[in-house]
Amino acid sequence: MAIPFGSLLPRTSRLRTFVSYSVMLGATAVAYLWIRAQGEQLEAPAATGASAAERGAHSSDLAHLLLALGVITLLARVVGGACRRLLGQPPVIGEILAGILLGPSVLGALWPEAQHFLLPESVAPALGVVSKIGVVLFMFLVGLDLDPRLLRGNTHSTIAVSHASIVAPFLLGATLALWLYPLYSSASVGFTAFSLFLGVSLSITAFPVLARILRDRRVQGTRLGVTALACAAVDDVSAWTLLALVVGIATATMSGAVWTIAYVAAYVALMMLVVRPLMQRWFVAREERYEGPLSHSALAFVFVALLGSALATEWIGIHALFGAFLLGAILPNEGRLARELRSRIEDVVLVLFLPSFFAFTGMRTSIGLVEGSRDWMFCGLIVLTAVVGKFGGSLFAARLTGMSWRHSAALGVLMNTRGLMELIVLNLGLDLGVISPTIFTMMVIMALVTTFMTTPLLDLLLGRRGFGDPPPDALPARTP
Amino acid sequence: MAIPFGSLLPRTSRLRTFVSYSVMLGATAVAYLWIRAQGEQLEAPAATGASAAERGAHSSDLAHLLLALGVITLLARVVGGACRRLLGQPPVIGEILAGILLGPSVLGALWPEAQHFLLPESVAPALGVVSKIGVVLFMFLVGLDLDPRLLRGNTHSTIAVSHASIVAPFLLGATLALWLYPLYSSASVGFTAFSLFLGVSLSITAFPVLARILRDRRVQGTRLGVTALACAAVDDVSAWTLLALVVGIATATMSGAVWTIAYVAAYVALMMLVVRPLMQRWFVAREERYEGPLSHSALAFVFVALLGSALATEWIGIHALFGAFLLGAILPNEGRLARELRSRIEDVVLVLFLPSFFAFTGMRTSIGLVEGSRDWMFCGLIVLTAVVGKFGGSLFAARLTGMSWRHSAALGVLMNTRGLMELIVLNLGLDLGVISPTIFTMMVIMALVTTFMTTPLLDLLLGRRGFGDPPPDALPARTP
Repeated sequence: MAIPFGSLLPRTSRLRTFVSYSVMLGATAVAYLWIRAQGEQLEAPAATGASAAERGAHSSDLAHLLLALGVITLLARVVGGACRRLLGQPPVIGEILAGILLGPSVLGALWPEAQHFLLPESVAPALGVVSKIGVVLFMFLVGLDLDPRLLRGNTHSTIAVSHASIVAPFLLGATLALWLYPLYSSASVGFTAFSLFLGVSLSITAFPVLARILRDRRVQGTRLGVTALACAAVDDVSAWTLLALVVGIATATMSGAVWTIAYVAAYVALMMLVVRPLMQRWFVAREERYEGPLSHSALAFVFVALLGSALATEWIGIHALFGAFLLGAILPNEGRLARELRSRIEDVVLVLFLPSFFAFTGMRTSIGLVEGSRDWMFCGLIVLTAVVGKFGGSLFAARLTGMSWRHSAALGVLMNTRGLMELIVLNLGLDLGVISPTIFTMMVIMALVTTFMTTPLLDLLLGRRGFGDPPPDALPARTP
Repeated sequence: MAIPFGSLLPRTSRLRTFVSYSVMLGATAVAYLWIRAQGEQLEAPAATGASAAERGAHSSDLAHLLLALGVITLLARVVGGACRRLLGQPPVIGEILAGILLGPSVLGALWPEAQHFLLPESVAPALGVVSKIGVVLFMFLVGLDLDPRLLRGNTHSTIAVSHASIVAPFLLGATLALWLYPLYSSASVGFTAFSLFLGVSLSITAFPVLARILRDRRVQGTRLGVTALACAAVDDVSAWTLLALVVGIATATMSGAVWTIAYVAAYVALMMLVVRPLMQRWFVAREERYEGPLSHSALAFVFVALLGSALATEWIGIHALFGAFLLGAILPNEGRLARELRSRIEDVVLVLFLPSFFAFTGMRTSIGLVEGSRDWMFCGLIVLTAVVGKFGGSLFAARLTGMSWRHSAALGVLMNTRGLMELIVLNLGLDLGVISPTIFTMMVIMALVTTFMTTPLLDLLLGRRGFGDPPPDALPARTP
């Protein structure tokens, strides 16, 4: 029978297909309906376990998370893009603003129903998971971008500027704590932890934002650019080391803090002196010999090492962020491995994860907590102290090393950029309970103001170079 | 004074740096200690808000998540690699096994303390968030890989085989429901939803695993390979369409289900007839003209569209997965955009997110629920029904279209691969409450057995081609 059928014309053949297909579908439907008729009479055991309502709640959680992530990603792009195009600001400013817009400060105050719909309290834990993973990955990338050559071979000006730009705001911040502590802290936090944290958090420089601004203005190769990058790198390492000490002190008794510091020192030594050479020899050297995309095994190895290092610092009693940063820092910052890791992780982290972190920060920032003239005066004082300490300290140190006033001022302005690094530090302080939500909000305002003022001040000092000609959005924000 | 200092020798200069640096540090320390002495006498307001204990719990949540993710990623790679090297199995088998090993079935039964330490109940929600985002992204990639040419221009054999491979297991599964429903279901689920779900879930073919097996054996260009790929693609679309109907029926009353189906049809029509041409014209065509890496704006646009589409299907009442798949399917499956999206998302999803999904599945799989000879008999019956329906249906349909017995059998074996697609479907059924944890466990065993048997049976039928010569791990598991 197969031969005559096979020799039929295509048209007839298609008809035959159609007929047999319909017959099959019809027969299936009839057969299923017969089965169903049998089955409808059966009785199942009584229901146990989760009720339908619980299951419904579960499913609507996913809907909330998808909605929140979608709105956050969209708004971050729109506001970030607007800041770049209309104000010539780095997009990160707009992304932070987008997070605050979605929080209780703006949307929650103007239209509480919309805020409750878009970012209900129930979505906060899931958003927290996304933003924590995002920040851990981001800190790994910051560590990966750290160029050891910027830390070595420092000139006088680098050392002087970077340390002055830490010491000055640190001391001013600690002094400011004398007034802030009795008003805005709580008795469960000691003055030492509070003042150390305030001092360190005023000393932060946003290395990624600074690198991006330098590249946008095409000054990364000049003396000013190189000094600024080197200072920021030294600042980064110093501030995070100081912060690790502060966290150790804040979370333990004084004797516990000594142990924490000893563990941190031992862990850093272990990573630099043992893990780094081993990794270099058994993993990095091999990966650098290959070409093409990174294998899944290599990627998994880096992820496991990253999670392990983050976990180690979390167990020591400082934060997972330090371990992630440290692992990035011991890997080479250029070559195939670094390039491949960045191309795998960076875009997803910057586009999908970090906006969630900004939104999570925005949900915790409540400008309504800063009310009355006294609160706003202290908020202004925090901004002033931050600027005077960081800008002033860098300015005078740079001038003393022989830079021109104009370039010294430009360096001071650059070092004064706080950006998202400050937000990471502030969230850490809030998580640990070292700072109260009111101080948190004031400091978020400070971070925004100091980052925002960088671009117009640089325009004034250096002319509007690079403005109106932003580099393609696709280029990653890293040291060239 | 600047001139004589500037002309000093470098050595003296370094000494001067060291001295001034030490003086600065010393002065800072003294200044801080003075501030601290003042501050220690201050009193802060009484503590309010979260207690230290709550904060501690919060911080240890992050540690648990990092630990869980690290262990999951590591074990998935190790067991996946072992399965590939020692047994010649696709790594996905090992990754699924790793998830089950970490769950209550193995680790929880043998060493409950270790399981409680590595994967405590408290980490399940965070792991759920990671695994849900991972599966949504994965289904987007599966949709993106869908080659429309495989669906068009079908030969007789493709249509016959693909539909036989759905109809046969569907009817057998629905029949099996007559025995399973009174024993293992619950009164809160109607027989219709239960039997439809059982039928559809036996009809699943794992397109990604199948594509990978074909490529590993280098038969993707042969008639057998092309037919298998085309059948699996048709199966994919048909099974997911059917599943959407089942979910619609399971979550609503009969009249509600009709509306759900109408909404689904309208949404698919909207995506295919309106969104697809608009996207093609305003987005895809522009992106294809550029070269180099995808811009952040384009990536954000795709993410927002993906989250929006997932949300739309979630709101309609079927699952977010359908929307993610559909958005992937309306984007072109080759060209710069597809290539760039894959290189940005795929590796992170496969290495970091999917193992979390397997672990989440493993946490819900409790082999202890299948106990006694009756349970194991039914478990065997499910495996047998799945194999007879899928393998038998494809075998006879392929033979009827004129394929050799050997190739028909090989095609049947390939279509019988369930892989991770089955796990996605089963988790959905468990989330909706259509199947009980016992049936879930039995079906997971079925998915493992049918995927596991594919490689040895193909070795028997086609010879051990490709074995011992696996392609580099780095190559993504997709249709060439």
